Amino acid sequence: MTYQPINFNDKFDKFSDQWAPRVIAELNDYQFKLAKIEGDFVWHAHADTDEAFLVLEGKMTIEFRDGCVELEAGEMFVVAKGVEHKPVAQAECKVLIIEPRDVINTGNTGGKLTADNGVWV
Amino acid sequence: MTYQPINFNDKFDKFSDQWAPRVIAELNDYQFKLAKIEGDFVWHAHADTDEAFLVLEGKMTIEFRDGCVELEAGEMFVVAKGVEHKPVAQAECKVLIIEPRDVINTGNTGGKLTADNGVWV
Repeated sequence: MTYQPINFNDKFDKFSDQWAPRVIAELNDYQFKLAKIEGDFVWHAHADTDEAFLVLEGKMTIEFRDGCVELEAGEMFVVAKGVEHKPVAQAECKVLIIEPRDVINTGNTGGKLTADNGVWV
Repeated sequence: MTYQPINFNDKFDKFSDQWAPRVIAELNDYQFKLAKIEGDFVWHAHADTDEAFLVLEGKMTIEFRDGCVELEAGEMFVVAKGVEHKPVAQAECKVLIIEPRDVINTGNTGGKLTADNGVWV
């Protein structure tokens, strides 16, 4: 039988809302989530886990209290557990986020940008 | 301060051997590994973990005992725990592999394609 690959562009075509990660795959108890981001997210941290960002299209900046990292397509960064960070994108950026299942996008901060968790696309 | 992104192409420029994954990042107890693959790998399985393949450049096939999945750049697949598989690439393909630290590339099979584990680039 022929198994189907997970195609990032096909998945991105299925949703348009920003800052609303969609689960596309699971690896043990970890999830791969696609997100479209634009503008400023909220400062937050994840107390119990690192979080990986992999840029698929566009550019983003992850701000830290003591600096930042700029990412473009073909680049990734792992935000360490407990480190406050704020994702920012000047124009829409498409990212792949990898983290344990049940991680909330706004971490310890909450607020209106908190997305429904565990929504698959 | 300015943090440095992990750039896949920069990392790939630093090694040329095939079937020899290089660690580029860690996420909790998981690792991100880049590999250049070409030809046929060995049939093997990982008894204790799923394994994610994300194609960055080129094309690959993951053969299973009951079929296969064909992947190209912008696509991924998660091989479930315990499932026998054989990665194959007709021409050199650049892939990102995500799996727990200490996973051996040839799984339960071993042999001459078994790579040194935990080598960073």
